[in-house]
Amino acid sequence: MNAQGDADGTRTVAEAAQTQAARPVTRGKPGRRPGGADTRQDILAAARTEFAAHGYENTSMRAIARSAEVNAALLHHYFGTKDQLFLAALDFPLQPRELTRRVIDGDRGGVGERLVRFAFGLLEDAASRERVLAVLRAAATNEQMARLLRGFMAGEVVGPIAAALDAPRPDLRAELAMTQVVGLIMGRYVLAVEPLASAPVEELVPLLAPTLQRYLVG
Amino acid sequence: MNAQGDADGTRTVAEAAQTQAARPVTRGKPGRRPGGADTRQDILAAARTEFAAHGYENTSMRAIARSAEVNAALLHHYFGTKDQLFLAALDFPLQPRELTRRVIDGDRGGVGERLVRFAFGLLEDAASRERVLAVLRAAATNEQMARLLRGFMAGEVVGPIAAALDAPRPDLRAELAMTQVVGLIMGRYVLAVEPLASAPVEELVPLLAPTLQRYLVG
Repeated sequence: MNAQGDADGTRTVAEAAQTQAARPVTRGKPGRRPGGADTRQDILAAARTEFAAHGYENTSMRAIARSAEVNAALLHHYFGTKDQLFLAALDFPLQPRELTRRVIDGDRGGVGERLVRFAFGLLEDAASRERVLAVLRAAATNEQMARLLRGFMAGEVVGPIAAALDAPRPDLRAELAMTQVVGLIMGRYVLAVEPLASAPVEELVPLLAPTLQRYLVG
Repeated sequence: MNAQGDADGTRTVAEAAQTQAARPVTRGKPGRRPGGADTRQDILAAARTEFAAHGYENTSMRAIARSAEVNAALLHHYFGTKDQLFLAALDFPLQPRELTRRVIDGDRGGVGERLVRFAFGLLEDAASRERVLAVLRAAATNEQMARLLRGFMAGEVVGPIAAALDAPRPDLRAELAMTQVVGLIMGRYVLAVEPLASAPVEELVPLLAPTLQRYLVG
């Protein structure tokens, strides 16, 4: 694990949260090509600023377009929907729609195992793990970032999974499953306690899957 | 929750880890009363420095006494054993011996519930929760602090609980239980996702206890 890389990622996100008030107004840059790499970076910077200032729920694509001084249609052309722009702005590798589809598609008895395998798919890859850890660290130490992640998780991850569960208290169920995944990330990849940190994925899947299965549909 | 208070606590611990190299050598302070409040603070400062520099496992009471320029007997008189000095230095409210005793004493079928109730006892109290969160945040963002907490957890928490479990792979079991507790802390108290953050303890205990029960002795 590259601890320095995480720290940089954390700093970038936290800085966006802290420096948004000081962001200069940059109207009418004359030499900028429309739709070039600068525009993309401007949109991402504006998205980080707006999300940090107002939270995920209260930030509209329209407000980001206005802040970046681009046409809303161009914003949609580049980044699609709000959740996709959020993920791009944070460089966060989780694709909530893929997660929801993977967890829900298939037999009900395999929900827990599919979720834990999806999590390991993300976490055993060094590059995506570093991005997940950077976002988690930022959320653990910065209340603005925690609020942002909370809004995103509620709207795009917990909500859709809960909606597909035919069981009482679906939101609480999805969140309990999330606590086990977050705890696994902390124990195996952040604190890196042994033997958990070195245990093979195939040993851990049958230990963790029943927990997620019970929380989600038990 | 007082986010500012956490940030301060985190900073204090992280600072101890970062500034240890720059700590001045303070030999023979002439006006210091032996055994006074200054001595206690000197010992705690020396303990933070030594633990941060060498990790929990590789720091001896003798080395801390030498660093604080006090008699080793005085150190033991003030703080008892190494784990107690560690907890005092980090202002960390977890009493691992009480935890181990509480979890192990009683019928085997109630291990999971006793552990989750112990955790809530610590976390539902605002003062001790803030200290737990400060240590967890520091460990999430500072590799030296993560190493320190890892050594302490392995030696004083996971080890004793594992030793009392009559089941295969006891260390891995105790660590899996730890991941669920840490994930609960992150989800309910740090990210504070709803409805998890506001759910009554008595609703959560029967949901979480079977997970811990299965990890520990299932």
